Amino acid sequence: MAGLTEFEPRPGHRVPRVDLIRAAALRQFAQRGYDAASMRQIAADAGITIATLYFHCSTKEQLLFDVLESQLQQLSEGLDRALDAAADDWAARLATAIRFHIQYVTRDEEGASISSAELRGLTGELRQRHVASRDAYERKFRALLKAGIGAGAFAPIDVPVITAAILGIGLSVGRWYRPGRRLSPDDIADDYIRFVMKALDPRLPAPPVADRADQTTPRSRKRAISASA
Amino acid sequence: MAGLTEFEPRPGHRVPRVDLIRAAALRQFAQRGYDAASMRQIAADAGITIATLYFHCSTKEQLLFDVLESQLQQLSEGLDRALDAAADDWAARLATAIRFHIQYVTRDEEGASISSAELRGLTGELRQRHVASRDAYERKFRALLKAGIGAGAFAPIDVPVITAAILGIGLSVGRWYRPGRRLSPDDIADDYIRFVMKALDPRLPAPPVADRADQTTPRSRKRAISASA
Repeated sequence: MAGLTEFEPRPGHRVPRVDLIRAAALRQFAQRGYDAASMRQIAADAGITIATLYFHCSTKEQLLFDVLESQLQQLSEGLDRALDAAADDWAARLATAIRFHIQYVTRDEEGASISSAELRGLTGELRQRHVASRDAYERKFRALLKAGIGAGAFAPIDVPVITAAILGIGLSVGRWYRPGRRLSPDDIADDYIRFVMKALDPRLPAPPVADRADQTTPRSRKRAISASA
Repeated sequence: MAGLTEFEPRPGHRVPRVDLIRAAALRQFAQRGYDAASMRQIAADAGITIATLYFHCSTKEQLLFDVLESQLQQLSEGLDRALDAAADDWAARLATAIRFHIQYVTRDEEGASISSAELRGLTGELRQRHVASRDAYERKFRALLKAGIGAGAFAPIDVPVITAAILGIGLSVGRWYRPGRRLSPDDIADDYIRFVMKALDPRLPAPPVADRADQTTPRSRKRAISASA
C-alpha cells in the first residue's frame, strides 16, 4: 500500500500537491467524519482528478493514516522545539509542554482534533503504527513527570494516570475552545498550568480522599494483602 | 419525527423492545461509528425486522439522539443519586461526583463514550437538544465548584475552565481504561480525586506559572489596560 510520504512533491508547485491533498482530506474528515467523507470530494477540494488522488494515495484508510501521522509528527516536533527553548527546571519544562499542547489544540484550524474521533477508521498495521506514534508523544510527558519526581520537583504521583489526565484536559479544550471568546489560549494554559502545578507541588501535602471514611485506598490494601501473604 | 421515547414497551416482554433497539444501536455505533452503522444491522442485532425498527424509530439520526439522550439521562440521574447519598461538605460532594463520573466511563460496556465521537451525526434541533442536555450535566459540576468556592472550601479558580478539565479527565479515562489491568476504577478515581482536591485546596497557595518570567497573566494585563483606558 503506497503512502503519501513515499511521493516527492513536484518541483515548481508553490504548495506541494501532497500537502493540498492532506489539507483537503483533513477538512473532509473533520467536517463529515471519516466514514462519510468521499475520495471524490477530497479530490475536488484539492483541485485534482480522482485518478490523480488514487495515484498519490491508494486507499481512504491510507489517507487517514497519512493525515493523522502528519498531525502527530507536527505535534511531536513542536513539543521538542518548545522544550529545547524552555528553562532548565522541571516545573518550567512541564509548564512549557502543557502550554504547547493547549496552543496546538486551540489553533484556529479545522480538524486539529480529528485524531481521537477517527481512530476507528484505522485497522490492522496502520492502526498499530498510529497508536505507537501517539504513545511516543504521551511518553514525552511521562518522562517529564518521572524526571521531575526523581529530582524532587514534583510530588510522587502515578505517572501514567496523571499524564493521561493532563493530556485529557488538552483533549477537552480542543472540543470546547472557540476563538474570540472570553479566554485566549494563553489564558486557558495559565489556568491549567497553575492547577496542575499546585497539584504536583512537592512542598504541599496531598489531602485525604474526602468521600472515603477508610483512608486506606483499595490499591494500598491490595499491596498490604499481597505483602502479608 | 417520532422518537423512541414516544413508544411504550409492549407488556409481557421481559426486556422492553425499545431497550433492545437502543442496546443494538449503541453496539453498532460504538463498533462501526454512526456513519458506517446500518439500520438493517441494528434491526438484525435487536432481533426484529427492519420494518419494525422503522416503526419504532423514523431515522438513524433520531435513533442516535435517543441513544445519546438515554446515556446522558442515566449519567445525570446517577449523579443526582450519588450526591443525595454523599456527605454534607463540599470536598466530599465533589469527590463523590468525580468518583461517579469515573465509574460511569469505566463501566464494562461498549459505547460508554460514544457521545463525543458521534455528536457530528446530530444536526439542527436534535443537536441543540442534546448539547443542552450535556450542558445541564456540566452545570451540576460547575454548581458544586461554585458553591464550594463560595463556602471557602475550594480555592478561587475559573469555574468553567476547571469544570471542563475535570470532565476532560473523565473523557480520557473512558478512552484508555480497560478492565482487569493494573488499576481498578476506584484506584483511578482515588488518584484523580487527590489530584483535583490538592489543586482546589483553599489552604494551599497557588504556585506561579513557571514558564512566564512576567507573572502578570495576559488576562490580568488586559483588565489592567481596559481599567486604565
